[in-house]
Amino acid sequence: MNVFERLESNVRAYCRAYPAVFDKASNARQWDENGVEFIDFFAGAGVLNYGHNNERQRQAIIDYMQADGVTHSLDLHTTAKRTFIERFEDIILKPRNLEYKLQFTGPTGTNVVEAALKLARKVTGRSTVAAFTNGFHGMTLGALAVTGNAHYRNVSGVALNDVLRLPFEGYAGTGVGSLDMIRQTLADSSSGVEAPAAFLVETVQAEGGVNVAGKEWLQALQALAKEYGALFIIDDIQLGNGRTGHFFSWEDMGLDPDLVCLAKGIGGFGTPMGLLLIRPELDQWSPGDHTGTFRGQNLSFVAGSEALAYYENDDFLKSVQEKGRYMEERLNNIVANHKKLNFEVRGRGMMQGLDTHSPAIAKKIMAAAAKQRVIVGACGTDGRVIKACPPLTIEQETLERGLDLLEAAVNEGVTQ
Amino acid sequence: MNVFERLESNVRAYCRAYPAVFDKASNARQWDENGVEFIDFFAGAGVLNYGHNNERQRQAIIDYMQADGVTHSLDLHTTAKRTFIERFEDIILKPRNLEYKLQFTGPTGTNVVEAALKLARKVTGRSTVAAFTNGFHGMTLGALAVTGNAHYRNVSGVALNDVLRLPFEGYAGTGVGSLDMIRQTLADSSSGVEAPAAFLVETVQAEGGVNVAGKEWLQALQALAKEYGALFIIDDIQLGNGRTGHFFSWEDMGLDPDLVCLAKGIGGFGTPMGLLLIRPELDQWSPGDHTGTFRGQNLSFVAGSEALAYYENDDFLKSVQEKGRYMEERLNNIVANHKKLNFEVRGRGMMQGLDTHSPAIAKKIMAAAAKQRVIVGACGTDGRVIKACPPLTIEQETLERGLDLLEAAVNEGVTQ
Amino acid sequence: MNVFERLESNVRAYCRAYPAVFDKASNARQWDENGVEFIDFFAGAGVLNYGHNNERQRQAIIDYMQADGVTHSLDLHTTAKRTFIERFEDIILKPRNLEYKLQFTGPTGTNVVEAALKLARKVTGRSTVAAFTNGFHGMTLGALAVTGNAHYRNVSGVALNDVLRLPFEGYAGTGVGSLDMIRQTLADSSSGVEAPAAFLVETVQAEGGVNVAGKEWLQALQALAKEYGALFIIDDIQLGNGRTGHFFSWEDMGLDPDLVCLAKGIGGFGTPMGLLLIRPELDQWSPGDHTGTFRGQNLSFVAGSEALAYYENDDFLKSVQEKGRYMEERLNNIVANHKKLNFEVRGRGMMQGLDTHSPAIAKKIMAAAAKQRVIVGACGTDGRVIKACPPLTIEQETLERGLDLLEAAVNEGVTQ
Amino acid sequence: MNVFERLESNVRAYCRAYPAVFDKASNARQWDENGVEFIDFFAGAGVLNYGHNNERQRQAIIDYMQADGVTHSLDLHTTAKRTFIERFEDIILKPRNLEYKLQFTGPTGTNVVEAALKLARKVTGRSTVAAFTNGFHGMTLGALAVTGNAHYRNVSGVALNDVLRLPFEGYAGTGVGSLDMIRQTLADSSSGVEAPAAFLVETVQAEGGVNVAGKEWLQALQALAKEYGALFIIDDIQLGNGRTGHFFSWEDMGLDPDLVCLAKGIGGFGTPMGLLLIRPELDQWSPGDHTGTFRGQNLSFVAGSEALAYYENDDFLKSVQEKGRYMEERLNNIVANHKKLNFEVRGRGMMQGLDTHSPAIAKKIMAAAAKQRVIVGACGTDGRVIKACPPLTIEQETLERGLDLLEAAVNEGVTQ
Repeated sequence: MNVFERLESNVRAYCRAYPAVFDKASNARQWDENGVEFIDFFAGAGVLNYGHNNERQRQAIIDYMQADGVTHSLDLHTTAKRTFIERFEDIILKPRNLEYKLQFTGPTGTNVVEAALKLARKVTGRSTVAAFTNGFHGMTLGALAVTGNAHYRNVSGVALNDVLRLPFEGYAGTGVGSLDMIRQTLADSSSGVEAPAAFLVETVQAEGGVNVAGKEWLQALQALAKEYGALFIIDDIQLGNGRTGHFFSWEDMGLDPDLVCLAKGIGGFGTPMGLLLIRPELDQWSPGDHTGTFRGQNLSFVAGSEALAYYENDDFLKSVQEKGRYMEERLNNIVANHKKLNFEVRGRGMMQGLDTHSPAIAKKIMAAAAKQRVIVGACGTDGRVIKACPPLTIEQETLERGLDLLEAAVNEGVTQ
Repeated sequence: MNVFERLESNVRAYCRAYPAVFDKASNARQWDENGVEFIDFFAGAGVLNYGHNNERQRQAIIDYMQADGVTHSLDLHTTAKRTFIERFEDIILKPRNLEYKLQFTGPTGTNVVEAALKLARKVTGRSTVAAFTNGFHGMTLGALAVTGNAHYRNVSGVALNDVLRLPFEGYAGTGVGSLDMIRQTLADSSSGVEAPAAFLVETVQAEGGVNVAGKEWLQALQALAKEYGALFIIDDIQLGNGRTGHFFSWEDMGLDPDLVCLAKGIGGFGTPMGLLLIRPELDQWSPGDHTGTFRGQNLSFVAGSEALAYYENDDFLKSVQEKGRYMEERLNNIVANHKKLNFEVRGRGMMQGLDTHSPAIAKKIMAAAAKQRVIVGACGTDGRVIKACPPLTIEQETLERGLDLLEAAVNEGVTQ
Repeated sequence: MNVFERLESNVRAYCRAYPAVFDKASNARQWDENGVEFIDFFAGAGVLNYGHNNERQRQAIIDYMQADGVTHSLDLHTTAKRTFIERFEDIILKPRNLEYKLQFTGPTGTNVVEAALKLARKVTGRSTVAAFTNGFHGMTLGALAVTGNAHYRNVSGVALNDVLRLPFEGYAGTGVGSLDMIRQTLADSSSGVEAPAAFLVETVQAEGGVNVAGKEWLQALQALAKEYGALFIIDDIQLGNGRTGHFFSWEDMGLDPDLVCLAKGIGGFGTPMGLLLIRPELDQWSPGDHTGTFRGQNLSFVAGSEALAYYENDDFLKSVQEKGRYMEERLNNIVANHKKLNFEVRGRGMMQGLDTHSPAIAKKIMAAAAKQRVIVGACGTDGRVIKACPPLTIEQETLERGLDLLEAAVNEGVTQ
Repeated sequence: MNVFERLESNVRAYCRAYPAVFDKASNARQWDENGVEFIDFFAGAGVLNYGHNNERQRQAIIDYMQADGVTHSLDLHTTAKRTFIERFEDIILKPRNLEYKLQFTGPTGTNVVEAALKLARKVTGRSTVAAFTNGFHGMTLGALAVTGNAHYRNVSGVALNDVLRLPFEGYAGTGVGSLDMIRQTLADSSSGVEAPAAFLVETVQAEGGVNVAGKEWLQALQALAKEYGALFIIDDIQLGNGRTGHFFSWEDMGLDPDLVCLAKGIGGFGTPMGLLLIRPELDQWSPGDHTGTFRGQNLSFVAGSEALAYYENDDFLKSVQEKGRYMEERLNNIVANHKKLNFEVRGRGMMQGLDTHSPAIAKKIMAAAAKQRVIVGACGTDGRVIKACPPLTIEQETLERGLDLLEAAVNEGVTQ
């Protein structure tokens, strides 16, 4: 029995699908301790948008550390934090005509979501939050309450209240009309449904199965929120930071979210950061209302500042869009090769999902992928969707090779 | 208006007490961007036990990064994680005859507490958790529910249920007898109080005002938990990692906690890690029951492994004990110099609190400390206690100088 | 200021619409203390199905009292209770091939609903109950949680949890298809919606606006409940006891409810009784699991036993059906006379509603009805529906006269 | 198998201890259908304060019915209700210099408690209610939440929140000092305990084991409530209506409760009534905020008005005090006869409890009482206390005989 089996809790999961002991990593490739190479189409669950050991970020971190930079600072001011804030304003907010206040929370996605819900409740004086079927927002009780997955919810052992569950687009109809039912209940004081503090939505539900919401539906949802005095919150934790071919997943959709949750990729190097964007008039926090020890992660500020350089011109995002189209094309070919199985490709940019509509088949494909040494993830209800989200910086050659391996894994999985 | 005021959320707090922009830091000293030096008696809220930019840890991180080590790995196996686990077993668990499984959670204290409560509820099938007056456990809804501070609780905007609130030792009597009331209610099926899933306790309530629980009381509490089938959980997030002069704050007390929450100092360098220790027979998690994107922080594994070297022999802990005694002595002198004010010193090891019994006086001392350039924190109800918890590695000379500054701040604060 | 204004709480409501002081009553007529006559189309909110001072019931109560019968007996056995149970079995259950256990709860509808929900939760081990838009089930916290009206809910001052709110038939589509959305979410473990302990439904939502559910929808709902191991509960408190022209509102619909809630008319004389019918295999109560001081109301057993005589043959129910058709016809004429207003008539048997689609118009009609001295009630969202539910025993002549008065009130109300 | 076993739910309880089928009853005696006589020391759980078939009340009800009086009227005005209100003012409120508004709720104790808690929450804007160990307040979810009995609570199958549980006097110390702990936590914003909407207390916990609170403690509790802006609510449902030798159980104690809950005896004849007394300035209900079908029970108004005649002079209450002293004396003799068992007598007026400190012995005494044909009840944790509360109108001779039977039952029970 190895040390992990002997000493690590039974809760460990991904390592069961990929039991290798990883030692080195560079951009989209990882090697185990025996030097065996894997292609990484998972990117640490959407964190490593700029690849493993991104050279520019690594050097910036090392330089900062060697210069005795402050590593950990709670919410004290540091020069590293100031640089991050200034660059975020200059490179991200200003060119998009956006105005947001920045709140650095505890450096995990679930902490950002907790802060967002707390603020929405404080601002509106309401307790319920509307969330969607198959939504995923985190594991701490506040974020778990808005998460759809029954298994995760049941483990909590307590009642998870204060949530109004609504169908995501495509769940029970598509388009603006699929919001009619909720609109009617909010207008009706005897419906048993009260106006929520917020609508919390992902533009693409990554963990939920790579379900994509359309522009019209999102606009209608935002309008509904405003109509009923609720905040419109986009959880852009997995889809933001360039993943869709735009910095924000929602920036080409005519949306104006009240709060935006960022984490994962915003820290740049796999170094964690939690960042809540707040429309200035909603920044109704009193000092210290919501705290957290690790909210001043300066290595993340340094690496995150460096990462923002990718957005100084359009080249990077164009390359993401191109690679995304290539991924989609290749996945569609895979689907075409297995017509009888009625697979389906969904996604935006470099977040692409292959819906097998079958947890059993998906499980076989996952096992084959492990043998093929391409790291992917299973998502959606009971893991029926294979999710591919490589580092955005992946070289075209590696991307092609990874897709070859994935294609082989699908072929192997479906014929078992 | 500076960039922080213009763009950072109003929620920021500590930076209002110490408005400098910090640039460099080394061991127990920090310098702002103008080169002004501060002595750090706060250690990033108890995180920086081994000082800012600890040389050994810094070098280890840099070496690891330069060798293309895997930075971020969810719960995949890595060589860095294996090293950490092995060293934790060899240096910490084995010499203390302890057996625990290790669960790496999202890398903040609140995430560890959420995991602990979830597991306690799963194992017992009960929903309520017993927590204590003035307890502090985090800001996400599950951890916030067990936290005592009314301000933090009210901001949540939802009902925080499933908690049984009990008096901490010294709150309404001391010693074993102060548990009589809860023992009686648990024995009585008409008391309206049901047996909880767990008793969650800090051995010293740091945020709660540096309130110290005694060995007998803690033993009686543990016995009570076992008697009623509840888990005994120690939140050692701020007091563990050597702070008291022992690795665990509870190790010299004849205790045998079921779960131990570690965070803050366990990551070594200000790099975050969340670690839940689980008695093997209670490791009843199913794979994937509780997840979190950033639970595989390899820079923290590297720095944390290096930090464990401090515990390979007794020298370090002895020095902590000595410096702790020195701090206590100096603080007692301060109290003696202001007899009429009835200040009180409480603490263990290098976590020492000066209870002014007056939020107003404490506020003045805090303002004076900022002027004196010694970084301390206010804790306890309405901030009436001045908390001093320097890096454990602080040089004796710096410690003395910091205490001089603190003494000056007290003198200045009380005469305003 | 009269004694009511001076000493009765401001909470009083109906007496503001009909401020008379009532003194006498007989069948469907009431007289105030000045001898002014009102026709009663309200029947005490559906309680007085057999009229005020029903002669047979009155005599039975007087005889019982004069013979020193036991009035109040908790759940001790009495001869009066035995008679009621035997007659309920012989006259109601056996001819309909129904098998139910009888639980006498505290003698109000809300107490019956609380018992039903408690039993459903005990039997299934689940906490959530599915209830419908515009449903009304009572004012105590358990029953209020499943009630739709926002005003009533908000007054509670606490979070009302453990409810899954679904659209009633006609709310967002009709027929079996309108249950597709809930069926889909229950089948999907990531929907965020877990299988409930029960589906609680009224066949006609009386307080909710006289909304009528169809046979096919109710059958599909029952099938859905069985499919997901949830209990199917019919709240027949206002529609049972002959109101629809059948003893149970659901008996001609091929339904087989697990639990049936009865109150209001079951006590016969305005004397209160709460009765929960339980399918024998679901009678999983332990002795004393649910109690209540007034669950042995023997005057109600005596009057209720007498009332059951109306069901010994078909004559009574046929007369109810005929009078119901007459009411519907007359109301349809009223609607036809005001075509531009698009009023709508809905109902079954002698529960008929005139939906004005306008709270403002309905309010004027209510005021006119008070002047015309016909007692009706406003129901539905913001009171937009005028509800007519006279005693089932009303003489045809009085019924006609009451409808004349109601017609006059509508004419007056809509021309103001 | 008899009809009760065959058709009544398994939930039935008291009838298992006294399996007779009762047919007749007069004052404090009941006869089963075979003419076997029982002496009633239970009074329908404290309802029948004026005896079974009280002649004056019976005649008043019959006269009212025969004159076509309105039986059921929701909250419409009736002459019967006016008479009750006027007599309650003249006979009860005015002589005691009390000013209260009257709210008639659904006619069960639990409905009154639900109304009281709802109003307290509305007035204060707070959600939590403080209630006491061993308190009993009802079976609907709002009242059940404040009830202490674990068995009843667990059956609910949902989380019962919004309650702060405190030790009743004698539970963990006596006198004013036993409130120190709660006073300290309310003063401390970090205690985790927030100021409640109300303190809800019984002056004698009848179901809870006949636990008696003292005047000083109750006064201190009332003062604490006022100090923290919480309502002081006395649940006088079982102890009011003359039971203690005063109309209200608290009227000789210098108390001034904000809300008083009445039910049980207030309806006079076993006819149910729920009555909440509200200090005028707290009558902040909006019309219709809290409703209930059976809140206009005119037979109860009639019988209740008649019952108030007992309070027109002191004779009745003096006789209750005398009989209460006699009961206490006799029970003390019983205790003296079994010294080794350390039984204890507790109570006030004609509510007396014999605490055996042993559920097993109490069970044997209950079985012997059934054989002796004296009806008593078991109360307190696991039924360890025998409760004697005969009709207040019991003749001295019957009282003596009943005590003889109870003494015989104790003798028989303890020697088994």
